[in-house]
Amino acid sequence: MNPHIEILFIGTELLTGKLNTHIVYFGEQLAALGLPPALAITVGDDRATMGGVFQEAIRRSDVLICTGGLGPTFDDLTVEVMAQVLKRRLVFQPAILRKIQQRFVTRGIPMPEENRRQAYLIEDATPIPNRVGTAPGQLLDLPRRGTLIALLPGPSSEMEPMAEQALFPLLRRRFRPPATVSLTLRVAGQPESAVDERIQPVREAIPLPRTQAIQFGILAHHAVIDVKVTIQGPSPHSVARTLQVIRRRFRQALGADVFGEDGDTLEGVAGAWLAKHHKTLAVAESCTGGLITHRLTNIPGSSRYLLEGIVTYSNRSKERRLGVSRRSLAAWGAVSEPVARAMAAGIRRRAQTDYGLSVTGIAGPTGGSQAKPVGLVYIGVTGPRLTQTWRFQFSGNREDLKTRMATAALDCLRRHLLGV
Amino acid sequence: MNPHIEILFIGTELLTGKLNTHIVYFGEQLAALGLPPALAITVGDDRATMGGVFQEAIRRSDVLICTGGLGPTFDDLTVEVMAQVLKRRLVFQPAILRKIQQRFVTRGIPMPEENRRQAYLIEDATPIPNRVGTAPGQLLDLPRRGTLIALLPGPSSEMEPMAEQALFPLLRRRFRPPATVSLTLRVAGQPESAVDERIQPVREAIPLPRTQAIQFGILAHHAVIDVKVTIQGPSPHSVARTLQVIRRRFRQALGADVFGEDGDTLEGVAGAWLAKHHKTLAVAESCTGGLITHRLTNIPGSSRYLLEGIVTYSNRSKERRLGVSRRSLAAWGAVSEPVARAMAAGIRRRAQTDYGLSVTGIAGPTGGSQAKPVGLVYIGVTGPRLTQTWRFQFSGNREDLKTRMATAALDCLRRHLLGV
Repeated sequence: MNPHIEILFIGTELLTGKLNTHIVYFGEQLAALGLPPALAITVGDDRATMGGVFQEAIRRSDVLICTGGLGPTFDDLTVEVMAQVLKRRLVFQPAILRKIQQRFVTRGIPMPEENRRQAYLIEDATPIPNRVGTAPGQLLDLPRRGTLIALLPGPSSEMEPMAEQALFPLLRRRFRPPATVSLTLRVAGQPESAVDERIQPVREAIPLPRTQAIQFGILAHHAVIDVKVTIQGPSPHSVARTLQVIRRRFRQALGADVFGEDGDTLEGVAGAWLAKHHKTLAVAESCTGGLITHRLTNIPGSSRYLLEGIVTYSNRSKERRLGVSRRSLAAWGAVSEPVARAMAAGIRRRAQTDYGLSVTGIAGPTGGSQAKPVGLVYIGVTGPRLTQTWRFQFSGNREDLKTRMATAALDCLRRHLLGV
Repeated sequence: MNPHIEILFIGTELLTGKLNTHIVYFGEQLAALGLPPALAITVGDDRATMGGVFQEAIRRSDVLICTGGLGPTFDDLTVEVMAQVLKRRLVFQPAILRKIQQRFVTRGIPMPEENRRQAYLIEDATPIPNRVGTAPGQLLDLPRRGTLIALLPGPSSEMEPMAEQALFPLLRRRFRPPATVSLTLRVAGQPESAVDERIQPVREAIPLPRTQAIQFGILAHHAVIDVKVTIQGPSPHSVARTLQVIRRRFRQALGADVFGEDGDTLEGVAGAWLAKHHKTLAVAESCTGGLITHRLTNIPGSSRYLLEGIVTYSNRSKERRLGVSRRSLAAWGAVSEPVARAMAAGIRRRAQTDYGLSVTGIAGPTGGSQAKPVGLVYIGVTGPRLTQTWRFQFSGNREDLKTRMATAALDCLRRHLLGV
C-alpha cells in the first residue's frame, strides 16, 4: 500500500500568476521513486488559510512536504504557523545562526537583523543543512499521528539538494516502494504527433509480465519531445529487464532522432563528443543572440572545447568578425544559405577551431517579409571534411523562436559530429 | 469581504511531472478581477481521493472551479464523482449529444460510443457550450451552502473561452469585487533581507483610508527582488491615489536600486536607454557564456543598439579578439579587475560602439582557488567619458551563478548608463 503523500507549495505569488515548477520536480522525482503524491496544494502567505490547510493535510497524510515560506521576511510564515498547528515551541539554534552569519561574512555584507528568524527550529525537528542559501530545511516526525513533515525552502537551487540528500533517501528506507524504473528517450527534429505515430505499434506490442505495471507518456517542450516509460514490479531485476526490451524497441523505431536519455541535453551530447575526441568548436550566432553559446557553456568543462562564441547581429560585424563578403550579404541577404555557410567557415577560420557552427534567421517580431518570414532560419556546420547547411521555418513569439532555433542548431551540430 | 475561491486541477499527469499552466492563467485572471483564489489543489484521476477533496472544498468555498476530467474515457471522473458527492442525479441531454455528434460529422469520423458520457449534466446544472471540443462545461449553484461550482474541461483552448465567456462575468456580477490595483517594484543589487529592512518603516507608516485593504509581498528570484503591493478599495480613483503615495515612498526608500516596475527587465531598461539616446553597445563575456547577450537580444528591436557580443572563453581569444595583453593575463590572471577593464575597452574599440560591457569570472564547478573562489566575478563598463569596474562574490551552482552574474552585469550597465 502506497503512503499518502501531499505536497504544499506556500507563496501568494504562486496563486497570482507565477509558474510553479516545483510540482513538476516533485511529480517526476516521487513518481520515479515509486511514491507518487496524492495531492498538491498551493496556498498563499496567509496565516489563517495556512493553518487550516496544514491541519487538514497532517490528518490525511503519511508524508507532508512543504516548500516555501522559510525566508527571512515578514511574509515567510511556514515555521511559525506549523509550530502553532502542532502546538510546539520554536527553539533558537546558535549553531545555525553562526552558519547564516558566516554566509554574510563570505559575501562581505552585514547580516540584516531579519535573518535571525531563520535560526529557529520547531521543537524536535532535525535541520537539513542549506549549502546555497540561509534557511535550513526541517524534518519532523509525528510519532502519534504517524506523519513525516518536511519543510523545505522555496528556491529550487536550495530545495532540490535538500530533497535529494535528506528527504528522498528517508522515504525510500521508510516505505520500501515497489521496484520502479523509468526511462525518458529524448527526441529532436520531429513533431510530437509524428513521434507518437512511430512508437504506437511498439507500445501496443510490449510483452508485459502480469506482475508488472507500465505507464507511457509523451511530452513536447519547444523542439524536444520526451517519450517516457515507467515500469513497476516486484523485483528490480524483472522491471529492469522489461525496460531493456522497451528501450531497444523504441530506439529501433526512432533511430538517430533520439539524441539521449533522461537528463541528457543536446549541448551535453555534442559537448561530450567534442571532449572525447579532443576537438574544438566556435559559434557564430545572429538571431539566437548568444543562446546557443549560453547553452553550450552551461555544461561544466565546456571551456576545454568551446573556444569562442560571437553574436554578429549587424552586417558590419558579420563582415569584420567573420569575413563574410559584402557581396554575399548584398546578393543573398544576411538570412540565406550562402551567408550561413560563410559564417560557419569564417568563425572556424578566425577562431582556429576544428568545427564552426553558424545560425542566421529572423526572430521577429519585425523584420520578416513574404519571401523571408519571421521564424525562417539557416544553420551551417563546418568541419575538417564537410560543410552542411539546413533551412527551417518555425513559428512562435520571439523567445520561443530563439529557443527552437537554438535547439535545431544544436541538433544539427550533433548530427554533423556523430555523422547521423 | 472577498469570497473564498478554490481551484481544483484534476489529472494524474499533473502529479507526475506535467507542467500545470492553468494555475498561472487563473492566478493572473482572478487577481486582475480582484478575486484572487485562496487555494489551488491538484488531484489525480482517483475516485476516492477526488470525492474527499470535493467534499472538503465545497465546505470551505464560495466558488469552486474544477478543471479536467470531463473527457470521454474511463479515467475522466469529475462529473460522476461530483454528482455522487452532491447526491444529485445525472441527466441525459439529447441536445448536447446532437452537438457532439455534429462535431464528429464535421471531422468526417464516426462518434465513438465513449463520447455519449459527455452528454450528461448534473441535475440543475447549466451547460457552458464548448466551441472547440466535445465536453460542455457545467455551472451549478448550491443555494443552501452558498457555493458556486464550475466544471471546465482540461485543454486550455476549450477551458479559457468558457472561463472568459461564462465564469468570470458571473463572478464579477455576483461578488462585485472592490477596485484593485497592484504594483511591483523591481530591485537589483541588494539581498532580499536588506530590501525588506529598507521598506519596513515605510510599510508601517502608510496612511491607509479605512475603506482600503493593502497587501505586501517580497520575492527574490536570483539577483532580482520584487516588492509587490496590491490595494483594494471601493473606488478606482481612491486606490490609485493610495498606490501613488506608496510608489513615491517606496521609490524614495529604495532609490536607484529600483530599476523598474511590473514587467520591466534590466535588459529592457538598459536597452530602452540606448535606443532613446541613439547609442550602441557591444558585450564581451567569459563566464556568463553568452547569457548576457542572449538576454539583451530577447528585447525586440535590440539589433538597433546591440552591435556585437563575443564569448571569449579562452585566453587566446581574449588576446586576439579583444586585444587584452598577454602580460596582463599572466600578471593578474584572466579573472581580475585589469582584465575586465581591458576586455570592456577592447570590445568597445573593436566593435566601434559607444559602450562596452565585459564580464570575467569563475562559474565552476571547477577552476576556483582560495584566492579566486568559484562565484567570483569582475564586471567592466566603459563609455565615452568613464570606465567603471565592479567585483562580486556569488554562490550557487553553475547555472545559478551564470544567471546572478549576468543580472549583476546588466545592473552595472544600467547604473553606468543612467549615472546612478
